[in-house]
Amino acid sequence: MSASRRGGPTGPTGPVIGRALQLLDAFGPQHRELSLSDLARRAGMPLSTAHRLLHELTVWGAVERGDDGLYRIGLRLWELGSLAPRGTGLREAALPFLEDLSQITRENAQLAVREGTELVFIERIAGSGAVPVLTRVGGRFALTATGVGLVLLAHAPVEVQEDVLAGPFERYTSKTVTDSTQLRRMLADVRSSGFSTSDRQVTMDALSVGAPIRDGRGEVVAAVSLVVHHGSTTPHALARLVMTSAQAISRALRS
Amino acid sequence: MSASRRGGPTGPTGPVIGRALQLLDAFGPQHRELSLSDLARRAGMPLSTAHRLLHELTVWGAVERGDDGLYRIGLRLWELGSLAPRGTGLREAALPFLEDLSQITRENAQLAVREGTELVFIERIAGSGAVPVLTRVGGRFALTATGVGLVLLAHAPVEVQEDVLAGPFERYTSKTVTDSTQLRRMLADVRSSGFSTSDRQVTMDALSVGAPIRDGRGEVVAAVSLVVHHGSTTPHALARLVMTSAQAISRALRS
Repeated sequence: MSASRRGGPTGPTGPVIGRALQLLDAFGPQHRELSLSDLARRAGMPLSTAHRLLHELTVWGAVERGDDGLYRIGLRLWELGSLAPRGTGLREAALPFLEDLSQITRENAQLAVREGTELVFIERIAGSGAVPVLTRVGGRFALTATGVGLVLLAHAPVEVQEDVLAGPFERYTSKTVTDSTQLRRMLADVRSSGFSTSDRQVTMDALSVGAPIRDGRGEVVAAVSLVVHHGSTTPHALARLVMTSAQAISRALRS
Repeated sequence: MSASRRGGPTGPTGPVIGRALQLLDAFGPQHRELSLSDLARRAGMPLSTAHRLLHELTVWGAVERGDDGLYRIGLRLWELGSLAPRGTGLREAALPFLEDLSQITRENAQLAVREGTELVFIERIAGSGAVPVLTRVGGRFALTATGVGLVLLAHAPVEVQEDVLAGPFERYTSKTVTDSTQLRRMLADVRSSGFSTSDRQVTMDALSVGAPIRDGRGEVVAAVSLVVHHGSTTPHALARLVMTSAQAISRALRS
């Protein structure tokens, strides 16, 4: 989905660098190890071109080739990625507060940012009694279902909101809200109350409450949430905890 | 240092993709925000070329341009980097054990891999009473000074060992070992005892003990360490704890 949004083989990037980036786009959470022919096919280019570009990417360290002949994302890319302010920078500022949230509740504390019309999970800390969740660090998710997603969508530019609210909507459970009028009301609630509630919208045993993290200009740059067993507590009881953490992380980010 | 080892402007990568990667190489822990002219100068290319390549990298998400006109590493690169098995994959497997180590001792637990003749820190968990350290996640460090570094060097291919032992050596304190004969003896000790000791080699108040993490074939793929206040305990007391964790992480990696 992400690759197509950025344009495919005839996309907006230049011919050579664009093809190298297409090769990298072939990797994903479900495609962590790829053969030369997998990569050529997924990137839509001849084997010989893929082979030459992969050689250059390997020398630089963007990909690594194992003894099994498969290509994987290389440590050099991880290292560069760790310089992203919205990734590692945010995560380092938030980590102590996420650990506190997780230890107090023995549940999941999550951190996410918006990227276009989706969210990207930056961190998840699971307490010893945490409810199972679908989250993966570095993974993408719909904005309409999770606690962090509803916060990020509620504070997104209006054109992003309209794009998302035009549907279609991902449905995870029978409780997933897929009605745009109801979603608009939920987003207005998030803005007025300062927190979001996702009640069994992703899995039937989880309740999530999220709150916004703001930069020095007051703009929402990320969201934090607690994801707990459904029935173990109320959204309002969690909201105070999560909002306090969100404010503490906002302060840490500014300093 | 890393960029020069991979070859500079006339390095081993092809002309166009090579120049795009040179632009990315201009970013580093001390250079997280760069202007167009900074980037052109650091990458050794004309402003117009840098401008065109940065446009392509921005469209793809490898870099992001702020309202202040400065470029930073983009979330898309962080996201792709999170697919690196030696980065996030290793970190996810090790995290519960690092948290245990840190909670038991209230000190620092560290995780690192070797990249050429240096190490890269993959994770650091700081306990509530942790001694200050120079570590940064995603940062590089010499192999000869730290607990994790000595483990990784002791199990590196002989040509890497010879390259490193030929010097020069980074000196951090008066206790930093910079004599190649003494270093060889320390590396032999690491291999026979199963753990490393770095006694005030990086800062005068820290003692570090490291142990190897092995893959299914028994090869050392990473190292874990505890870094504690010097004088608070003995290396042997820490060694049992660290070696047990290293074995547990090795098992988790294999499954």
